[in-house]
Formats: sequence, C-alpha cells, structure tokens
Amino acid sequence: MAVITIVGAGMMGSALAFPARENGHEVRLTGTPLDREIIDTCRATGRHPKFTADFPAGVTYHQIEELDDVLAGADFVIGGVSSFGVDWFGDFVLPRIPEKTPVLTVTKGLWDTADGGLMTYPALWETRLAEKGLKRCLNAIGGPCTSYELVAHDQTVVSFCGKDEKVLAFLKSCMETDYYHIHTTTDVTGIESAVALKNGYALAIALTVGLNQRERGVDSELHYNSQAAVFGQAVREMARLLKLQGADTLDNLTVGAGDLYVTVYGGRTRQVGILLGRGMPIEEAKETLKGVTLESLVVAERVARAVRRKALRGDLDLADYPLLCHVDDILNRHAAPDIPWERFR
Amino acid sequence: MAVITIVGAGMMGSALAFPARENGHEVRLTGTPLDREIIDTCRATGRHPKFTADFPAGVTYHQIEELDDVLAGADFVIGGVSSFGVDWFGDFVLPRIPEKTPVLTVTKGLWDTADGGLMTYPALWETRLAEKGLKRCLNAIGGPCTSYELVAHDQTVVSFCGKDEKVLAFLKSCMETDYYHIHTTTDVTGIESAVALKNGYALAIALTVGLNQRERGVDSELHYNSQAAVFGQAVREMARLLKLQGADTLDNLTVGAGDLYVTVYGGRTRQVGILLGRGMPIEEAKETLKGVTLESLVVAERVARAVRRKALRGDLDLADYPLLCHVDDILNRHAAPDIPWERFR
Repeated sequence: MAVITIVGAGMMGSALAFPARENGHEVRLTGTPLDREIIDTCRATGRHPKFTADFPAGVTYHQIEELDDVLAGADFVIGGVSSFGVDWFGDFVLPRIPEKTPVLTVTKGLWDTADGGLMTYPALWETRLAEKGLKRCLNAIGGPCTSYELVAHDQTVVSFCGKDEKVLAFLKSCMETDYYHIHTTTDVTGIESAVALKNGYALAIALTVGLNQRERGVDSELHYNSQAAVFGQAVREMARLLKLQGADTLDNLTVGAGDLYVTVYGGRTRQVGILLGRGMPIEEAKETLKGVTLESLVVAERVARAVRRKALRGDLDLADYPLLCHVDDILNRHAAPDIPWERFR
Repeated sequence: MAVITIVGAGMMGSALAFPARENGHEVRLTGTPLDREIIDTCRATGRHPKFTADFPAGVTYHQIEELDDVLAGADFVIGGVSSFGVDWFGDFVLPRIPEKTPVLTVTKGLWDTADGGLMTYPALWETRLAEKGLKRCLNAIGGPCTSYELVAHDQTVVSFCGKDEKVLAFLKSCMETDYYHIHTTTDVTGIESAVALKNGYALAIALTVGLNQRERGVDSELHYNSQAAVFGQAVREMARLLKLQGADTLDNLTVGAGDLYVTVYGGRTRQVGILLGRGMPIEEAKETLKGVTLESLVVAERVARAVRRKALRGDLDLADYPLLCHVDDILNRHAAPDIPWERFR
C-alpha cells in the first residue's frame, strides 16, 4: 500500500482519488486555497460537490494549511491544479515536496516563450526550480479522460509520461485498475503537447455546431459533415504543431486525436464554442459561462501566439494553420465565426 | 453547363444531384435495377424517398433501360452504387461509358486479394476492364460526407482522387459549391484506402456505446472516455494499414480520421455497433436492421481477412491490430464484445 497525496481538489484531481483509493492506497485529498469549500463539503458528505458518486471510503480530506503534514510520508504526489494554478503549484507546492518523491500532474497546457516556443508545464517547472537550485521528479498524465466519466468507471486509456521508466512503472502499478488503463512513455514533450494543442481545435469543431444552430435553430439536429471536416483539418494542423515540437510520432498524434474527440463532447470547451458559433461575442460568452473554468481558451491563445511569432521569424507558414488562426481571431480580434473552408490544406 | 449522368439512385448518388444541379448542370439521375421504386417516387414527387428535401428543379429521373440514352452526351458520369453493386457497375455500366468520359464514383470499399493485398475499387475495375481490352477514366470521391447532411447543405469537405489533375480540376469546377468543398489529389490508393479502412473502427467505437448501455441502461448518458480511447487506437491501426497500402501520408490519415468521426455518428454502422455492444449476436443484429445497407461489415471483414493473411505470411504482427481483430472475431467468430484495452499499443 502506498501513500498518495493529491494537491488540488478540482474535478480531475479529485477523480483520481477513485482508482487510487480503490486500489487500496492511502489517499490524502488536499485542497488549494481556492478549494476550501470543496474540502468542507467532501468532509461533510464524502462526495465532491460536482460528482454524482461518493468517494471510496477511507479517502481523507485536508485544507491547504495541512500541506506539510500530508506531504510527509507520501510515496508520490498528484498535482491536480488547473493551468491557472501553474505558478502557485510551482512556487508553493513543488519546493515542499522531497526531491526523490515522484510528482504526477494532470495540468494540461503549454507556455509560450518569447521566441515562439511552446514549453510543457513540467519543463517550465523544472526551469523555475533550477533557478532556485531545486530538482524534482516530475511526471504527467495525458490522454482523453473527463473526470466525471472516470468517477463513473467508464473505460479510459491515458498516458503517464516522465523521464524515468522505473518511476512510471511504479506510478502505473499504483493507479491502474480494470477501467483506468495506463500507457507509459518518456516522451513528455510529445504527450504534453498533444493534449494541450487540441484546445483551439475542439473549440473550432464546437463552432460548427453553433453555426448550424444559428442557421437551423438551437434545437436542430446535430450535423456531422462539418464537424468531421474541421476534425480532419484539426488533426492535420496538430500534426504540424507536433512536428514543430519535435514530437510528431504516431503515438502522440493518436493521443492528441483521442483527446480532441473527448474534448469536443467534454463540456466546457464545447459550451463556449457553441455560443461563439451562434454569434455571441467572446466577452458575452465568458460572462454566460461565468464560474466555468475556461483554461482551453488560454491555451488556444498561447498556441496561436507562438505560431504567429514563429511565422514572423519565418519559421513556418501561417497558411498551414487556417483553423488555429481563425479561432484566435474570434477569441482575440472580435472576428465573426466563419470557418475558412477554402483555406483548409 | 455540363451534362452529368448519375448511375445509382441510392442516398449518396442522389445527394450529389444537389450540388450538381444547383450549379446549373443538366443532371440525369438513373436508377440501378434495384432502384426502380425510388425512380418512380422521384418522378412522382420530385423527392428521394429517404430525403427530407425536394431535388432542385430540373433534375431528370431515369430507369435503367434508359442507360444508353442518358450516357449519350454526358460530360461525366457519377457512379453511385454501394459496394454490393461493384461487380454490376464494372461489368454492366463501365463498358457502356466512352473511354474519354470521366467517371466519378462514390463507392467506398476495398477488395481483398489472395496474397493479403487490399485493392481499391478503381484499381479492381481497371484490372477487369483491361482483361476485356478496355480502359476508362476512373476517379473517386472520398472523405467525410453523409448524404442527408449534404442534402441539408451542411458544410462538407471531400477529396476527389484520380490520375489526371486536369480531369480532377474539371470535376471540381462542376461540383463545388459554397457548402461542398473539394480537395483534389492523384493519390487514389491513399484516399480510397483511408475512407474504407475506417469501417471496422467506427463499429468498434459504437461498440463502447452499446457496452455502456448494457451496463448502465439503454437510456443512460453517452460516455466519451471509452469512445475516445478506441478512437485513438483506431487512428493508430489505420495509420499502420495505410502504411501497408504505401499511403501513410498525413493527408490520407486526416481524411480517414475525419471519415471515422462522421461514420461513428452517421447511422448504419453506429446502429449495428451499438446492438453488438449490448450483447446481441451478429445474426440477430442483422435481422433487426433488415433493409439497412450494412456494407461497412463487409469492408471490415475484408480488411481483417487481408490483415490475417499478411500475418500468416509474416508480413505484419497481428498484435498491432487488436481492435480490428476483435471486431472481426465478433462479426465472424461469435466472440462477445470485450474491448482489448490492455492490448492497445
């Protein structure tokens, strides 16, 4: 039996308590300063406020003040913050974790650099830790997995990535169940890029749903030709972006395609894409979805910004990214949704 | 204005009358011997019995006896038969078409050969015509397009493939509209393989829907983690199959992925996959869907047969195709649906 400390009681971090605890491990679910009420609710009811099933018996719940206590003796730490918590996790949590203790993060995203590069969060944390003379054993989870379906024990296949195969094998042995299947790979850049790049594209597919609703009515049947056309172009552009990341393997592309598939249906990105497709301005869409974590928009903006920078430097041709540019124009330049069908290539 | 003769009044052949006629061309929709009632209905009502919109005014409808008349003066011929009509189209229709007249077929499928090869229909027809000393200008349509959504003017992106770029440009100029977008390519093997290979995989994704329904009830919410996991593995296996076809380009893979996406939602393959996933034996599923064209099953079987033959010859490792083999086992060996999650790779 291992001791697993989860830091971040959002939906994904909390969902991982299920396979972890069902495998018999000691699971310490710890909230960030923003999760105070969630932890109170978990303690009072044994259920996360956004889930429809109770946690397995025996999970313990902790406020952030207990962080040092729950980190003590942990065999590994799961980082469950959203991309808005990347700085906090890197500055406040990671330094408190012992150097040899593996960290497994679910945070999906990329960080754009001044030269048009896109850094994974593990690489970003590593750089910042190195500035303080620190080193951590960073691993990450990628692949198509919505938290509420993991809680429902839907069959799920993900990838654990990290630098050390032995560590990955240990993490897998602790977390794998008969419904949570885990591939392991040392290609951190590939997995983390694949699952982050899909954000703008999931939004683009959802745009077609909204565009159809605008034309045919909000209750009209879903149309799939247009979704599929955008899906195909999305895979094409994602493959090119993976190549820029030096990570254009078939495995990475399939993880990205699977993640794109689930994100189209997974809730938040779909919701905002449909609203934008119907013609709602971005500010109004954000206002409408107030309280919903829209990290996908941030990631999409960063990827687009990096691509535009690389184009300015002559490192790529923007014409290879018509879909990404269009999403960026909608999000940041008040463009009306108008899928550039004729510029697909 | 061109004269376009469509042979085959199934849903896809008939749907192509819309962009063709809306572009002002003369369109002669001609039924196969099996389409007699459809043509009668079209004549009486101006609408295909399976469509919810009338044909554009001016389309003319013809029984098979008029074939020679409607072929006379045609600038190109659209072949709209299903894969069950491949022999008939090759033996009866193609020889009647003049050598220089372009033929554009919508028939999706592959033909497995004794050595484990997979021939496209254009290649199969070409071979058979050559045996008669004949030659035809064969082109084909691939890509994600359901007929009823084309009729509804949903935005659609397809690929026209053929050997002669000038012919493809002409076909595109006749058929492209503001909702029917056409890419052209001379990679016939690539496009035709990509859009045929997806059949077994679309069924596999639908299986997960049925498996979930069996566990959670027929009216339970859709789950996407499991669909996405199978989608990812499907893209992986399709890429390998494209490589065997000598056609593993990014363009082909994205056409295949887009077509897979639309087929999962497109009706017939989904229906049978869900029934099988619920645990219904294949014979009962076929009986339940009587009257529904299940050509996807035939194509899936052929691809699996080819892959097994190649494995026997030592040309590939069956372990690279766990999903295809499982679908084949369900369809042809009465295996119970049980997705081989642990064998995904």
